[in-house]
Amino acid sequence: MIPLNSRLSGLRRSGIRQYTNLAKTVPDCVMLTLGEPDFDTPEPISLAAMASLGEHRTHYAPNQGVEALRAGIADAETRRGLVCSPEQVLITAGATGALFTALLGILNPGEEVVIPTPAFSLYETIVTVAGGVPVPLHMENDGFQLTPEALSGVISEKTKAIVLNSPNNPTGTVLNAASLAAVKAAVLGKPIFVICDNVYQGLCAKPCPDLSVDGDLREQILLCQSFSKPYAMTGWRIGYLVGPADVMARLLLLHAAEVAALPTFLQDACVTALRTDPAPMARVYARRREFVCRRLREMGLSFPEPEGAFYVFPDISRFGLPDGEFCTRLIREGGVAAVPGSCFGSDGHIRLSYCCADAALETGLNRLEDFLARL
Amino acid sequence: MIPLNSRLSGLRRSGIRQYTNLAKTVPDCVMLTLGEPDFDTPEPISLAAMASLGEHRTHYAPNQGVEALRAGIADAETRRGLVCSPEQVLITAGATGALFTALLGILNPGEEVVIPTPAFSLYETIVTVAGGVPVPLHMENDGFQLTPEALSGVISEKTKAIVLNSPNNPTGTVLNAASLAAVKAAVLGKPIFVICDNVYQGLCAKPCPDLSVDGDLREQILLCQSFSKPYAMTGWRIGYLVGPADVMARLLLLHAAEVAALPTFLQDACVTALRTDPAPMARVYARRREFVCRRLREMGLSFPEPEGAFYVFPDISRFGLPDGEFCTRLIREGGVAAVPGSCFGSDGHIRLSYCCADAALETGLNRLEDFLARL
Repeated sequence: MIPLNSRLSGLRRSGIRQYTNLAKTVPDCVMLTLGEPDFDTPEPISLAAMASLGEHRTHYAPNQGVEALRAGIADAETRRGLVCSPEQVLITAGATGALFTALLGILNPGEEVVIPTPAFSLYETIVTVAGGVPVPLHMENDGFQLTPEALSGVISEKTKAIVLNSPNNPTGTVLNAASLAAVKAAVLGKPIFVICDNVYQGLCAKPCPDLSVDGDLREQILLCQSFSKPYAMTGWRIGYLVGPADVMARLLLLHAAEVAALPTFLQDACVTALRTDPAPMARVYARRREFVCRRLREMGLSFPEPEGAFYVFPDISRFGLPDGEFCTRLIREGGVAAVPGSCFGSDGHIRLSYCCADAALETGLNRLEDFLARL
Repeated sequence: MIPLNSRLSGLRRSGIRQYTNLAKTVPDCVMLTLGEPDFDTPEPISLAAMASLGEHRTHYAPNQGVEALRAGIADAETRRGLVCSPEQVLITAGATGALFTALLGILNPGEEVVIPTPAFSLYETIVTVAGGVPVPLHMENDGFQLTPEALSGVISEKTKAIVLNSPNNPTGTVLNAASLAAVKAAVLGKPIFVICDNVYQGLCAKPCPDLSVDGDLREQILLCQSFSKPYAMTGWRIGYLVGPADVMARLLLLHAAEVAALPTFLQDACVTALRTDPAPMARVYARRREFVCRRLREMGLSFPEPEGAFYVFPDISRFGLPDGEFCTRLIREGGVAAVPGSCFGSDGHIRLSYCCADAALETGLNRLEDFLARL
C-alpha cells in the first residue's frame, strides 16, 4: 500500500460502533449504546423538505448556507445571548462538520487542545487529523466539573483551544457557573479559542449555563450546534458554526473545499425546524432520565448527576473488571449493551443511553441488575 | 484576531463566484459563468427522496454510506471496468468531499500533486489545505494533452499524486489514449496515486478513455465521482470515492471525522439516480456545444475542441487585454459574463459555460460578437 497521511495512523474505529456491532450478534440484546434520538423527525420538518424538493430547490446552495436559514439562526442565537449576524453563521455537515472545520481551521502542528474528559472521542480524532495535540483534562476527581487548579495544570503557551461540551457526552452532566468562571479566567484575552459543543443544550431539563453567550469572550468563541439531537434529525447532517466575523470569513474558504455547501432543500427544512419546539421530546428524555437514575441508585451504583443529553455514566470500578471486559460480558451474559467509559477516555465507568422505548429501557435495566447480582 | 491554521492564508474566494457576483450587478447580464446544469433533478429521483423521508429514514446512515447505494455503485463501476466491491466505495459530500478526503488522506507536508492545467481551482486549494505542494503541468502548448516529456518535467521523488479531469473543466476536452498511456508509463508501480475526477464523464458525447478502469493501476487509482452533473443534482451534495480496499479502510476513518455520514434519504434517492439514463441531458448539451463552437468559429476565435462537460475555452490573447480585464469589460460593456482563464491557471482564455437556456445562449453569443467587434 502506498503510504498515506501519517496523521491517519493513530485513528481507530469508534468504540460505540464496536460494542453496538457486538451486541447485534446476541439475539434480543437490549441496546443502550446509541447516541441518537429514537424519535423520527417531526413531520412538519420532513414536509418542508418535500415542499422545497417539489419547488426544484435542487441547485447549489451558497457555500456559507441558505440565507434564510443563516438569518433564522442568527436571530435565534442573538435572542439566546450570542449576539451575531447571519455573516457569522456557517451551515455545516452537522456538529461534526462544524467541529472539523473549526479545529482544522485553527490548528497549526503541535498546538494543543484541552479536552475536558470524559469526552466524545471525535474531538481527539479531529485534533489528531489537524496535526494538533489533544490534552485531556480529567474531571472524574472534581465531580465532573472544572477547577482553576485543574485548568492551570493543562493550559500552556501551546494551548490553542478548549472544547466545552455541556450537557456532556457521556455523562449528561452540565458545567456549573464555577466551572465556566474558571475557564473564562484561564483564557480571557489569550490567543485561545473556546469551542462550545452545545449539541445537547436543547435537551436540557433546565437552563444550561454557557460561555458562548459571554460578551467578554466574543472574539474567542466558536459555537458548534446541530439540528440532530433536539429535532431528531441525525440522518439529515445539518449543523452550524458561529464565530467572530473575520475568523468565519477564513473558515468559509476551508468549508467550501471540504463539502462545497450543504443540500439546499435540507437547509430549507431546517428553517421549519427552528420554529419547532423541542420541549416535548426533552420532557420524554427527562422522564426516562429520572427512571434510569432511580433504578441505578436501587442497584447501588453511583454516577454524576445527569441534567441533560440522554446518557448516564455509572461507576463500575468496584466490580474489579476492566470496563471493556465488563461491557463484553454484559452483552454476552446479560443481554444488554452499554459502552465502556474508556471509549470516552475514562476507565471504570459505562455509558448507558436512554434513546429507546420505555419498555426496552425497563428490560435493559432489569437485566443489568440481574447481571450485577451474578458478578 | 487569533492566528489560524497558516495553510489557510493562501486561500482565495472562487474566481467563478467573483465574476458571477459582478455580473449580478449588471441588469439583464447573460450568465455564461455557471458550472452546474440548468435542468432540475429528474422527478423520479426527487420522488424517491420523498418516499424515503415518508418512511422515516431520518436516522444516521453508516459512516461509509447506505449499503444498497454502495452495492449499486460497485456494480455500475464494475460493469464500466473498474472492478470493485461495495467495501471499496465511500459515499461523500459530492466529488468535492471525495477529493478532499482523498487528498487530505494521502498527503504529508511537502508532498507534491501534479495538476494538469488549466484546471478547476479546487485541486490547488485542497492540496494547500492538506499541506501538499500543487505542481501545475501546463497543457496549453501540447494541444491540451499530456506528453511523456511534459510529465517527466514535473514528476519527482516528492510526487504523491496526479489529478486527471477528463472531460476537463474548463476546456471540455478529453484526454486521448496517448495522454493516458504517458501517465500510466510515468506512474506505474511507483508510490503515486492517480486521482480520476470523472464528474463530467456522464456528459461526454462519446466513450471517454479513462485510466480508472486500467487493471494494472488498480492499487494506485482513486476515483472521484458525483451525482451532481449527470443527474442535475448539484444541490444534493452526494458523490463517491472508490479506491484500494486497504486505502479506503483508512480514508473511512477520516471521512467519519469530517462529516460522520451523508443524509440517509438522499442516499436512498441516489439508488434511483443510478437507474436514470443521463443520455437525454447529454444530448441537449451536445446540441448546445455544437452551436457554441460554430458561433465562436464564426467570430474567428480558436479553442481546444470540447467533447464533454459543458464548457468551451476560447483563446482571447490576441485582443491584448489581461483576461480578468477582458471579462470585467465583457460584463460591464457587453452584458455577458464569462470566467477568466487565469481562474483556472491559464491566462489569455475565457471559460464559457452553456448551462443555460438556448435563447439566453444565443443572446450571450451575439453580445460577445458585438463586444469583440467594438474592441
